[in-house]
Amino acid sequence: MELDRIAAFSDAIFGIVITILVLQFAVPVLHHPQSISELANALISLLPKLASWFISIVIICKFWINHYYIFKLARKANFALVWINCFFLMSQSFIPFPTALMGEYYQNPLAVSLFGVVMAWNTVMYILLHEYINRNLIKSEFKNAQDPHIIKKSFIGVFSYLLGAGVAWINIYAGFIIFLLTPLLFIVPPKLRTEENEEQGV
Amino acid sequence: MELDRIAAFSDAIFGIVITILVLQFAVPVLHHPQSISELANALISLLPKLASWFISIVIICKFWINHYYIFKLARKANFALVWINCFFLMSQSFIPFPTALMGEYYQNPLAVSLFGVVMAWNTVMYILLHEYINRNLIKSEFKNAQDPHIIKKSFIGVFSYLLGAGVAWINIYAGFIIFLLTPLLFIVPPKLRTEENEEQGV
Amino acid sequence: MELDRIAAFSDAIFGIVITILVLQFAVPVLHHPQSISELANALISLLPKLASWFISIVIICKFWINHYYIFKLARKANFALVWINCFFLMSQSFIPFPTALMGEYYQNPLAVSLFGVVMAWNTVMYILLHEYINRNLIKSEFKNAQDPHIIKKSFIGVFSYLLGAGVAWINIYAGFIIFLLTPLLFIVPPKLRTEENEEQGV
Amino acid sequence: MELDRIAAFSDAIFGIVITILVLQFAVPVLHHPQSISELANALISLLPKLASWFISIVIICKFWINHYYIFKLARKANFALVWINCFFLMSQSFIPFPTALMGEYYQNPLAVSLFGVVMAWNTVMYILLHEYINRNLIKSEFKNAQDPHIIKKSFIGVFSYLLGAGVAWINIYAGFIIFLLTPLLFIVPPKLRTEENEEQGV
Repeated sequence: MELDRIAAFSDAIFGIVITILVLQFAVPVLHHPQSISELANALISLLPKLASWFISIVIICKFWINHYYIFKLARKANFALVWINCFFLMSQSFIPFPTALMGEYYQNPLAVSLFGVVMAWNTVMYILLHEYINRNLIKSEFKNAQDPHIIKKSFIGVFSYLLGAGVAWINIYAGFIIFLLTPLLFIVPPKLRTEENEEQGV
Repeated sequence: MELDRIAAFSDAIFGIVITILVLQFAVPVLHHPQSISELANALISLLPKLASWFISIVIICKFWINHYYIFKLARKANFALVWINCFFLMSQSFIPFPTALMGEYYQNPLAVSLFGVVMAWNTVMYILLHEYINRNLIKSEFKNAQDPHIIKKSFIGVFSYLLGAGVAWINIYAGFIIFLLTPLLFIVPPKLRTEENEEQGV
Repeated sequence: MELDRIAAFSDAIFGIVITILVLQFAVPVLHHPQSISELANALISLLPKLASWFISIVIICKFWINHYYIFKLARKANFALVWINCFFLMSQSFIPFPTALMGEYYQNPLAVSLFGVVMAWNTVMYILLHEYINRNLIKSEFKNAQDPHIIKKSFIGVFSYLLGAGVAWINIYAGFIIFLLTPLLFIVPPKLRTEENEEQGV
Repeated sequence: MELDRIAAFSDAIFGIVITILVLQFAVPVLHHPQSISELANALISLLPKLASWFISIVIICKFWINHYYIFKLARKANFALVWINCFFLMSQSFIPFPTALMGEYYQNPLAVSLFGVVMAWNTVMYILLHEYINRNLIKSEFKNAQDPHIIKKSFIGVFSYLLGAGVAWINIYAGFIIFLLTPLLFIVPPKLRTEENEEQGV
């Protein structure tokens, strides 16, 4: 199978997931449609949903960028890669549910920690994909170009999401903040040490 | 018409179907938004939906991979292919409804068997597409490259989904398991016996 | 602007419209979740929705194929084309609403005729796009390749949808049938009389 | 990263946003399903939603065309561009909510002005993207090709949306009209003064 078509398929799914996240914002029901204060209160009560939506999109964008990065490492695709990718995308496509749940029940630690668990799970699926490419499909020029501890370092993301999930039982806002900070750790995929980069002293 | 554009259009539809399946997970309504046990119970009651969602995505991913495979066999597209493909994609786009129905009414054999019937129908549409390409549009190098019984073997999928639909009237869980096992039978499209493969002794 | 990117954008919208049509099938609410007869009745009452959904997808697929055809006639894109195409796609993206309305209130002639009016409107937008390409952007090799009455003939579609919209006030089922038959008139875009075809005696 | 893939990803999101806007049109609930007058009244009460939907799509199409234009100016992509683009797309993906809100509560100045604020915000994100490309990634042949006041002129859009948001508190219909007129100011991206154009006297 061609890497390009799988990448395009993945991009479509990332794009749809990002876009349908907005569907969790239902138009509030007002008893007095023209009441400014009632609508203002209804909109203020949507702020936790907005926070949940924002964190979720930042995380998905980060997954999209990193997914792009590991697909560039692969020299070809095989059926194992396609299926691991399918399970990764399936996990991505699930994200709107815990996002909406956390937005609705932001005061419920179970809802907040479920969000963290789903994101940790997604990171594990991503690591699996990365590790499979590293072991079986890596382009020869990238064989030694990656940080040898890259996979271990990726587990920091898993633990960070689980930490947020745990902390939510003590302080919910701390959980939110950890969820938001985690993608920032990986906001840019690690540099590859190719010969070209070394020559330029990068 | 160009095969590439039809394939891209098909991919978009596969991707959207996979992603909107998550919309069946509505945020549960809690009487006590902060109650952990109430939310836990609500989430546990979503497990049948999760199973239905998972089975459905595995099946759609399998269709996507096999669709890719048969489009590679074709040397060009014509309007008959486009229309058969449209009817196949239409059938794929219907999948979210029986999936949501089976997830909601997993104890109702009619809901479970409808899922099987829809999947059997989709497999028939897929076979039609495959057979049409084999008869009219096959690339010369693939003329004898396929298993001569490939179409007959594909009907195993049809019968397996119908078997699951029938078994659901006796035991619902057995129906679920048959639905999940069926795509595994076809998880990798059959190898093509091209000259290149033969030389390599594959 | 590049024709390819506009075509890909259009394809994405066609694909999403086709796929979200399924969202009109809400899971029915059963008083006895395990009742087979209650579910069977609920499913039977969805049949008008199924008919509406089917007619709508056939029509959209036909628009997609014909859209492909007229874009092949154009030698380049300009901003007027982009905007006419945007208004055409906007009209396509509206289709799920009259489709759901006709499926729900199939016994209400107003709902049925609204469907016809929206489809007539979409056909007008399509003709506008076709006519604009013919007048301003046509490839030199296709200048005389089209049936000179092609635009007039396309108005048959407009009148046919409006006929269905009118007939629905007398007999609703006749309206449905006219809606379904209309795309069949244009199921395959007209052949182009290129020199190559003439040589082959096509 | 490749500009083409980011552009395709962006297009997918624009396309999905445009298409899911239709989901705000819920099928009305009729007490007498066959009543023509009841359905007619229900449809007439949807007209403000139709206006809101129309304005929103025109604005998004305009963003899509201008996004295309500024991506053509860039010679390559970097991670900063990708992230600014992600925040821009995130802002685009939010549009369905204020659109639905304005359609539902068109008589509530808060709902109408929220729409204007969100559009002003989107324009600011767009300007950020444009300015970033101009400063860091511009193709050498376009360095002096743009109107030197282009960024300042883009702020006219921001102020115009905010003007509409303000005017809505006095007259709601005037707000609607300003929202609709604003994209018309930028309906076609500004011409580039390349050497080729100058030679042709354009």
